This record gives sequence, structure tokens and C-alpha cells, in this order.
Amino acid sequence: MNQTINGGGASSLQFPAQLRICVVGMGYVGLPLALAFQQHYPVVGFDINAQRIEELRAGIDLTREATSAELQSANNLLFSAAAEDIAQCNVYIVTVPTPIDLSHQPDLGAIISATELIAGYLQAGDTVIYESTVYPGVTQELCQPLLEQSGHKAGKDFALGYSPERINPADKDRKLKNIMKITSGLTHECAEFVDALYSKIIVAGTFKAASIRTAEMAKVVENAQRDVNIALMNELAIICDHMDLRTYEVLEAAGTKWNFLPFKPGLVGGHCIGVDPYYLIHKSQRVGHHPDLIISGRRINNSMGTYIARKVTRMMTQRDIEVTKANVLILGITFKENCPDLRNSKVVDIHRYLVSMVGTIDVYDPLVRSADSEHELGVSLAGEPPQNHYDCVIMAVPHDEFLQRGADWVRSLCRQPCLVYDIKSALVPALVDKTL
Amino acid sequence: MNQTINGGGASSLQFPAQLRICVVGMGYVGLPLALAFQQHYPVVGFDINAQRIEELRAGIDLTREATSAELQSANNLLFSAAAEDIAQCNVYIVTVPTPIDLSHQPDLGAIISATELIAGYLQAGDTVIYESTVYPGVTQELCQPLLEQSGHKAGKDFALGYSPERINPADKDRKLKNIMKITSGLTHECAEFVDALYSKIIVAGTFKAASIRTAEMAKVVENAQRDVNIALMNELAIICDHMDLRTYEVLEAAGTKWNFLPFKPGLVGGHCIGVDPYYLIHKSQRVGHHPDLIISGRRINNSMGTYIARKVTRMMTQRDIEVTKANVLILGITFKENCPDLRNSKVVDIHRYLVSMVGTIDVYDPLVRSADSEHELGVSLAGEPPQNHYDCVIMAVPHDEFLQRGADWVRSLCRQPCLVYDIKSALVPALVDKTL
Repeated sequence: MNQTINGGGASSLQFPAQLRICVVGMGYVGLPLALAFQQHYPVVGFDINAQRIEELRAGIDLTREATSAELQSANNLLFSAAAEDIAQCNVYIVTVPTPIDLSHQPDLGAIISATELIAGYLQAGDTVIYESTVYPGVTQELCQPLLEQSGHKAGKDFALGYSPERINPADKDRKLKNIMKITSGLTHECAEFVDALYSKIIVAGTFKAASIRTAEMAKVVENAQRDVNIALMNELAIICDHMDLRTYEVLEAAGTKWNFLPFKPGLVGGHCIGVDPYYLIHKSQRVGHHPDLIISGRRINNSMGTYIARKVTRMMTQRDIEVTKANVLILGITFKENCPDLRNSKVVDIHRYLVSMVGTIDVYDPLVRSADSEHELGVSLAGEPPQNHYDCVIMAVPHDEFLQRGADWVRSLCRQPCLVYDIKSALVPALVDKTL
Repeated sequence: MNQTINGGGASSLQFPAQLRICVVGMGYVGLPLALAFQQHYPVVGFDINAQRIEELRAGIDLTREATSAELQSANNLLFSAAAEDIAQCNVYIVTVPTPIDLSHQPDLGAIISATELIAGYLQAGDTVIYESTVYPGVTQELCQPLLEQSGHKAGKDFALGYSPERINPADKDRKLKNIMKITSGLTHECAEFVDALYSKIIVAGTFKAASIRTAEMAKVVENAQRDVNIALMNELAIICDHMDLRTYEVLEAAGTKWNFLPFKPGLVGGHCIGVDPYYLIHKSQRVGHHPDLIISGRRINNSMGTYIARKVTRMMTQRDIEVTKANVLILGITFKENCPDLRNSKVVDIHRYLVSMVGTIDVYDPLVRSADSEHELGVSLAGEPPQNHYDCVIMAVPHDEFLQRGADWVRSLCRQPCLVYDIKSALVPALVDKTL
């Protein structure tokens, strides 16, 4: 028995003496987790994407969450795409994506596949923990029955827990270890085990939620709150535009109140804020409540790409720029600044609207390989943009690299008359024609 | 010329050498303002409510914003309900209420009356500043033309400004002087004058907004943000109830994330958060945008009183408490804890729903005079509640006085079976049957 982990109390579950952890899913969430745990236990970092596993073995992390040195010094971590490598593990942590489909419904395919994989190897004394963001009930209503098809009972033969991931991609200060982590378990015993396990790696501390469903709910609530707050800023930006007020001037003034929350208008993409609220909406509707406010926020945030593109074409016309002959440049394609993450990027909506209207449209993003953008978003990237060439430049994603080159550089890419639309008010206002 | 105020720059406006300030409206906003300014200038504190003026002269402030000592030592302040007393003033600051009517439309009656009063006395060199919360455009589109009926032109003959109030009733730490204040003016010269004037009394500093409309917008945005955030918590509370999750446990877990915002579900009443968003909605719709999110937030927040009352009757029935014979007690009637302010209190909605269903219903609030509650809300107050008498107690407004007596006291008022509904999760959870 591992006394530290098990707490030494009366136990119906028989936890193994030596933990061997398998992290299923080597993405933004799983990789940092595997790297942290391998300092304490042998870890298998499993992913069905063989290319990703090859890269990690070669010390390359395209998500930029881990350095080459960190990968190469992880002696206790085996990267694998071979299912048999997980057979010897006794703690399984699921960090697979939980995206939405084209109809904005939860796509639980990856979590089901991962669960079925684990069920095939599940033994008495094992532990299964989910980190993927889900709606309340998924762990117990969907995953638990699948795991129990192994013949083992959750809470009796194996431990079941949920500990929502809080990885903030591209955040160099708040990493896995210094973000407090919620833990939960099916039984008191499961909860204690899960909490003790994470306490080994989370310096910021852990928080035991009242139940798995409470922990599941807490996670979607966090991102629904951010989504609604950004939606409010977008709604205000639309109202300000109708009234010829500059949104950032209004927000700067409001921001002088002690309790004003400094959200900004903008595109909401990515794998979290633009996705998780749909999980909550899905569950809410299933239990009989139509969540007006959250749905309203989603609708606004999803409409902003098209809103911006419409505004851009209207302003080009007002400035006598011939839209159908115009050269347009979009700066930045990722869902977030200083991050190569393309998932669910809403810059695509601007591109999609404009591509059928304007003369030419280039997208420039030095953080992204064109092949990745083509694969993920169907958008090819241009090289270094030429000078004196564009009739409209949209600063979509203000990477530090763009900001270091500055508004003068952006202006140097323009021929006259030109429209510079700075979505996030990142450039010097005097050199910009319009912000959101 | 008052060089300090005027800044000594080139001026088309001729500001008077000696400022004499009139604050129009002696409520929560006007009284602290008059008290602050009278330390620097002679001030007339004007209100059309003669009884309020009598009380203030006698050293009594029923809003509890000023102490008797503060009122009696204000030697440079004349309280008056007589219009002729404002004639000698040259700076007019309007702090009258801007409520909504029964259809949730802005009721600008008081601001129009105040403006017409001032217009009757307006002279060249005077200044008019509005502090009342309004939608963007009211100062310039509604008030300015009324003032100019005096024959004087705004920005040329008299100065016009807007500086939104940020008074937080019952907040003992954040008072007028230590809350940063937004200022604005019709012209650069007006803006400078208004800013210098407030700089005399605001220790926390002033912020010059880009324009009067920017300042007007900033104010309604602040309160719309709070309103939407509380609405989200209320929507989550409704979803949690459908799923048998305890909202406060979910919010406590989510609150362990560094950027989670600690709002709570509850009733949204009062003169600001439950009102100001309607001003923004009104203007938004007038300029052509239907603000879905803000409207959705209002709808949820307005529905919570009835939602709670429905839940209470359902739970009473489930517990075999005969609703039509039940004695129900509501603790607290004000819109906010530890504050006698009754304006727009939503506890009334609970009362209204229950009064036609239950046997008896008492409302107890030691901070409020029954006559005031009858006048403002149409609800009479009961005296000290008897022991062992109630079948349901609703802790609606957790005044400190209630919390000091504690959940045991609340329970002692009950006979069995009893339902204790604690709207704001203010009591010990173990002694409470249900929270929002």
C-alpha cells in the first residue's frame, strides 16, 4: 500500500503499492500533466496520434507548452501510441478533447473511445480520473457504465474521479503547478485518493469539491462566465458603433470604477470559452431549462467575425475603396495572441465572409505553419506581406511580434486610401481607422 | 476670476470669481456632494421635498449617508425647498432620481423639472452639471435645449458637464471622496472647469472622459455589467436546482480559479443595477440595436422573486405543510443588507406571490419604519417575530442584525415541520433547507 496516497484509513478499495500512471491524450492538457507526474511515478503518455508521439519523442512540442529540454529530461515518461503500453498502468487520467459538432452539440466521441480503451485494461485497484471538460453527469452517467462493462464496479473495485483541467495556453506564469486544482471522487475514498494524488504535483493546492457533478459543473461555469462577460463587451461595442462612441474610451472611463471588470470586446474562439458553454447549454436544456443568457452570449460572440467583416466592407465602400478589387490583409489567424493554437479560431469567419467579396485576401501569421492552418481551418497563409500593397489591413490577432513592429509597419503595408481595422485596440489609436 | 478652477487659460466663458453651488436633489447622491462642496464654497442643498429639508435642517438623514454631527457642522450649506434660494447660485449640479416607469421605460420627469427650474435662473457664466444616471445623449439632446430656452448658449454663455455619481449606499469604506470620479464637458473648456471643480473634493482623483456621451455611456455600462453578472449567477442557480446541485458549492469550487468572479445569485433591486440597464436598453433600441444579452439579464433578474416564491410553495407542499394555512415570515424588506433603502426592492415580488396563497405572512425588518414600507412598497411590517410560530421562514435580506442572532434564532421561530429558505446562503448551511 502507498500510505501517502491512500491516507491509511479503512479502505474497501485496494490501491496498488506502486502507482503507474497513464495519461490518455497528449495535448495542451495531458502533456504538462504527464511531465509533472513523471517526477513522482512512472508515466505513460498515450495518444492515438502517432505523429504527435513521434514529435514528443524527438523533443518537439508544437503546442509550446513544454521545452525540448523538459521533454528530453523526462526519464520516467514513456510516450506511446501503442495501446498495449497502457496495460501495466493502474491510474488512468483522461485528457482528451471534448469539442462540439457543427450543430454546437457536445462531441463525446474521444472521451467514449478513451473510456472504452481503458475499460479493456481495467483491473481491480485501478483508478480512472477525467480532466476533460464535460457537462455535469458525463463521468457518472456516460463513462462509469462504460468502465463497468469491464466487470468491475466503480467505487468498489476501482476508483473514479473528476478533476477539471485549468490549463491556460500560452500563459507563461500560470502553469499546471501553480493553478489551484479542483478534485472530486465518486465516494469519499475515491475523492481522498484523487486529491492526495494531485497534491503531489500542484503547488498551489487542491480543492475537494462536494461531488463529481459539482466539479464538472464548476468547470463549465467558469468558462460560461468568461463567455458571457466578453459577449456583453461585444454587445456594448455594437451599441457604441451605432452611437459613434469609441468602445475603448467608454471602457477606459468605466474602468476607473473599483469594481468594473476589465473585459474587452473581441472574437471568442479556442477550445474552451467558445465551446464549454455549449456543454452547459446542452445539459440545461435536457433537464428542462432554456438558459437564455448563456445562449444569448454564445450567439453574440459567434456573430462577431461576420459583424466585423460586414463593417469592414461598408467602411471600404464609404472610403471609395473598390471592394471587389481590394487587396485585404488579415494579421493573425490563431484563436489567441502569442500562441500557435488554431482550434476554433473565429478569424476564419472574417476570412470566409470577405473571400467571396474582395479582390485578394492574404492571411499572415508567423506563429503558424501554412500546412497546419490549411488542415485545421482550410486557410492558406501568405508570407511576409509586401509594402504599399493593401487597401485594407485587419489586425485580427495582436501577437507581440506584430506589436513590436508597430502601427507604422501596418500603415507601411497600405496603399492609399486604406482602411486599418484593429479588432482588439492593440495599436496606437491615431494610426487606426476603426476598432471594435 | 477663480484661477484655480478656471486654469487661467484663454476662455470664451466668463466664470464668476466666487462660485456658489446649488445641488438640486438632496438624496443619497446630492447630500454627500453638498456636504463635500460646502467645505470649499457656499452651497445650497435644494430639494422639492420640504419634509426632507426639514429633517436635514434638524440634523436627521434617513438615508444614513450623513451623521447628525456632519449635518450640524455644515455651516456653509443652506438646505432649502424654496426655489428663490437658488437664484444667487452660479454652479448647478443635478442629482435627482432617474427611475423607470411601470413599463420599464426611463422616467425623465425629475431631470426635466430640475432642468426647467435651473433654466429659469440661468445666467451667463453659470455652469450646469448632471450627475443623475441617464442614457447617452440625455444631457445634450434633452437637457441642453431646455437650458438654452433661457436665451443662453451652452459652451458659449454657460458651461455644461456630466459627472456620473458612483455613490454606493451603506458602504462605509467607499465614500464620495475616495471613489474616482468621471468628469466631462460639452467643450474642452467646460470639461476642464468641471474636472477642476471635482478635483477639489475627490481625493481618489478624477478621470476626464472623452465626451459627455462617453461619460453617460460609461455609467450605464458599469451597472449593466453587474446586472448581467448577477443574472448569470441566477441562471446557474436555476440550472443547479434542476440538477439537485447546491449553487454555493459549485460557486465555491469555481471560485478557486484565479479569474473567477465572485458574484452570487440573488434579488436585484434598488435604484441602480435594476434600473440603469433599462436606460441603456431604451437608447440601444432607439439607435437600432436590440440588446439581447442585457435584456435577457434583466428578464432573469426580474423573475427571481416569483421563482423563489414558487419554489417555496412547492417545497412546503412536499413537506406536508398546508400552504393555505401556513404562517410565513420574510426577514428583511430592503433592497440591500444593512441599509434602510426600500427603492425597487424585489422582496416585494415574493410577498406579492405568497400573500394570496398562504395563511398569514409577516415581514420583519428592524431597519425600516412600517410607514415607510407601506408608502414605498405597500407592505406593512410586523414587530419582533414570535417563537415557535412559523411554518416557513424566508431569509430575504441578511442584515448583520439577523446574522448576529443567527440560524438558531431563525429556527426558534419555526414550528415543525418548517421550511427555512435562505436566499443568499448567509446562514449556517446545516440549519437551512434550501438556498438559491
